[in-house]
Amino acid sequence: MSDTPNPLRDPRDKRLPRVAGPSVLVLFGVTGDLSRKKLLPAIYDLANRGLLPPGFSLVGFARRDWDHQDFRQIAYDAVKEHARTPFREDVWTHLAEGMHFVPGEFDDPGAFEALAMAVKELDTSRGTGGNYAFYLSIPPKFFPQVIEQLQASGLADRDNGHGGFRRVVIEKPFGHDLTSALELNETVHRVFPEESIFRIDHYLGKETVQNILALRFANTMWEPIWNRGYVDHVQITMAEDIGIGGRAGYYDGIGAARDVIQNHLLQLLALTAMEEPTSFSAESVRAEKAKILSSVRLPEDLAASTAHGQYAAGWQGGVKVKGYLEEDGIPADSRTETYAAIKLEIDNRRWAGVPFYLRTGKRLSRRVSEVALIFQKAPHLPFSQTDTEELGQNALVMRVQPDEGITVRFGSKVPGTAMEIRDVSMDFAYGESFTESSPEAYERLLLDVLIGDPPLFPRQEEVELSWKILDPIEEYWASRKKVDQYKSGGYGPASADDLMARDGRAWRRL
Amino acid sequence: MSDTPNPLRDPRDKRLPRVAGPSVLVLFGVTGDLSRKKLLPAIYDLANRGLLPPGFSLVGFARRDWDHQDFRQIAYDAVKEHARTPFREDVWTHLAEGMHFVPGEFDDPGAFEALAMAVKELDTSRGTGGNYAFYLSIPPKFFPQVIEQLQASGLADRDNGHGGFRRVVIEKPFGHDLTSALELNETVHRVFPEESIFRIDHYLGKETVQNILALRFANTMWEPIWNRGYVDHVQITMAEDIGIGGRAGYYDGIGAARDVIQNHLLQLLALTAMEEPTSFSAESVRAEKAKILSSVRLPEDLAASTAHGQYAAGWQGGVKVKGYLEEDGIPADSRTETYAAIKLEIDNRRWAGVPFYLRTGKRLSRRVSEVALIFQKAPHLPFSQTDTEELGQNALVMRVQPDEGITVRFGSKVPGTAMEIRDVSMDFAYGESFTESSPEAYERLLLDVLIGDPPLFPRQEEVELSWKILDPIEEYWASRKKVDQYKSGGYGPASADDLMARDGRAWRRL
Repeated sequence: MSDTPNPLRDPRDKRLPRVAGPSVLVLFGVTGDLSRKKLLPAIYDLANRGLLPPGFSLVGFARRDWDHQDFRQIAYDAVKEHARTPFREDVWTHLAEGMHFVPGEFDDPGAFEALAMAVKELDTSRGTGGNYAFYLSIPPKFFPQVIEQLQASGLADRDNGHGGFRRVVIEKPFGHDLTSALELNETVHRVFPEESIFRIDHYLGKETVQNILALRFANTMWEPIWNRGYVDHVQITMAEDIGIGGRAGYYDGIGAARDVIQNHLLQLLALTAMEEPTSFSAESVRAEKAKILSSVRLPEDLAASTAHGQYAAGWQGGVKVKGYLEEDGIPADSRTETYAAIKLEIDNRRWAGVPFYLRTGKRLSRRVSEVALIFQKAPHLPFSQTDTEELGQNALVMRVQPDEGITVRFGSKVPGTAMEIRDVSMDFAYGESFTESSPEAYERLLLDVLIGDPPLFPRQEEVELSWKILDPIEEYWASRKKVDQYKSGGYGPASADDLMARDGRAWRRL
Repeated sequence: MSDTPNPLRDPRDKRLPRVAGPSVLVLFGVTGDLSRKKLLPAIYDLANRGLLPPGFSLVGFARRDWDHQDFRQIAYDAVKEHARTPFREDVWTHLAEGMHFVPGEFDDPGAFEALAMAVKELDTSRGTGGNYAFYLSIPPKFFPQVIEQLQASGLADRDNGHGGFRRVVIEKPFGHDLTSALELNETVHRVFPEESIFRIDHYLGKETVQNILALRFANTMWEPIWNRGYVDHVQITMAEDIGIGGRAGYYDGIGAARDVIQNHLLQLLALTAMEEPTSFSAESVRAEKAKILSSVRLPEDLAASTAHGQYAAGWQGGVKVKGYLEEDGIPADSRTETYAAIKLEIDNRRWAGVPFYLRTGKRLSRRVSEVALIFQKAPHLPFSQTDTEELGQNALVMRVQPDEGITVRFGSKVPGTAMEIRDVSMDFAYGESFTESSPEAYERLLLDVLIGDPPLFPRQEEVELSWKILDPIEEYWASRKKVDQYKSGGYGPASADDLMARDGRAWRRL
């Protein structure tokens, strides 16, 4: 279908590539940022790599007075601007033929009936066999409404004579606390069984995140030191240099901890800390992740082991930027945090006594996501004090972005006649080490949805366990009635540095 | 004295650089290759870096009808061609002023009396304080003669009213078997005490060799896996692409095992396998090396666990090259090996059951020296068989030359939608990681001789232990009365591959 190199397939791979079967993807929220920047381009890239079946169809649904052609034009622009693979007219034309638009409001039963008609028509005209995936790229408050409409219109109904699959894709956050997560889950479960629910955490689609499991369990050399005997502490960071942009409506009242820690960072923690699964099946991996999340112990003194802050005005990349409270749409008395740091312990044999420090924030000095294992100092150094002055702690860093890879920091002799030792690093970069390019996280995840292969999607149990960890912290922060400020373009609030300093440690440089 | 950057000193080093005190270096064998290519340039580089004291003097001794000026010219040419640091007229002029030449035969007492006069005259004229180091860059057969002349002429005598140091530097091989090593030692010891004897193994002056100790004992992350629990086997390689060149007279009858394994490779084995020394003092390090060498167990079946060969004619770098037996000065019936491989075991708690494979050879496909720890396969892989087809064993490789550094090989996920795992590498290169350039091994070692700091020099016990390991193998090879042939530019004799294949292993690619 195409001669574009397929990074989803290794040239040495003797197996057939994973290709999705005939299906319709219904996209709610096609006018949103995610849809334009990630989903539509990812769908094109999958098509360009030959991983979508010819009959694949895409139906957009939104409150716009568009026809099919308008939708195709919007998608065309999005693909031209954001797709990773080269633009090919024939691939686009073929894909565009299967693109349809249904206008409507989420509370309009008539619009969902029109949608049901449209997808059934595609079953006939394009042979999609009654296989529907509903992607809810919309604010969570609309989830209940849309789910109910899918049921009422018969769209969610498997016994409609077609017998195809019905899958629903929801984006984080999965609720804003345990109670709302349970409610959301009940709403979705009323219509879809657990195995049909795909909770998207796009972080889990990233190569490095998946590689944590390969790194740990395909090798001999890392696992022996992956425990309390050698690890001093773990730092999990997701720092952004941008502010909230146009997302005030979504972000305010949610904040950094709910937006990032509850999902991305706790998932990274689970993958980093979990025991070896019996296999790489979805069930085994999820079971081990859940075990870790249920072993996480909240700090007793939340004042001492958490920090939160809001970005104040400052300079970033030579540009003066607004503080959070001055952003459009943010109430002047908002206490929503744009920075959050927490210290967690894991109560099991492997990790007892090893703190896991999680931090995330906006308007920080640079964009970086990583998991860093910081090792204990060597128990004894047969060198003189002076020789090892510049020697820090060994570290193994799994870089999630911007340049996916692995860094090992260790002590090496400084060239010269003395046995002086200083920290050096060695790197492994995904981009340099493989001729295959990494697929976009959403390519991987969309394909997994269409194929129905869920190991990278968190299940409800993990969502609930994560809220159980976060809820008491959110409650404590709410009771505190104030939030620290930090300068844009910097390293976060001083309270976050104090948190580490109390333990005699420091954050890795951003 | 000079603004040339000093790689022997780290800019962040708060200590004073190690500078030698006033002294005379007497160089026997100034007309040889080593002298021209390594020693004279290293002396200039040390001067250029400001590490030689102003009064430093160099006296050349050889069977040539030269005057001081001839010697300076020879040295000038050598420095111009081979020095690492930029040529500076003022540094050279200053150094040349202290360069003298004494012509003579090794069996001529008169020549040694002239030499004694010359160095005493330097004590007066240049303030070298009666500190003499005698560098014997001559064939070992002349050692006894020269040592005796040094004694007879009073040059070796510390009680001559000056009270300065007397040091003697000898180059490997230290004998050609245990008996001759004991004899040589007796000869040298009759005149010099053990602490004044500097046995040069220039390999030990290389940064990576010294870094083996830093790597192992300054870090937390490597030592836990540095044992029989995780290491499958160790490969120590010194491969050369060149033939014997003009060294027929030295090489024939000696061979690869005596030339390289007895010193370089067994020293690398000792540094790699030894326990942590209590300090980095010469005594502690030497004691641990000796413990390892005395724990080395010779294979019972020498036929199955050794291999040796001679290079036959072939092609190298596009050039047709002669076989060993056709080289000038080599008897047509020579059985001297130019390739040697042996398997050793170490009988201690850390290494029991872990074979150490040593190999060295000339006229191989490329020049490489390295120590490679090959780890066991992971005890269990939670991935499918297909996913791990391309996964080998983890390896940690300490590269001694040509590009000094460290490589770690491990399994990583291949970009794409499947959990496929393939070997990748990460590298640390000395040259790229430090702004300081590595000093030439001989710079380090010459400075150590002048300063009198001996941790990198093997002591007599190690020499004897090494011969105890090698002697039975040499005897077996002599009894075999034939030596395998291997094609120049290739990978060594088939028997060496068979040696590994019998153990279900393979040599690392050259």
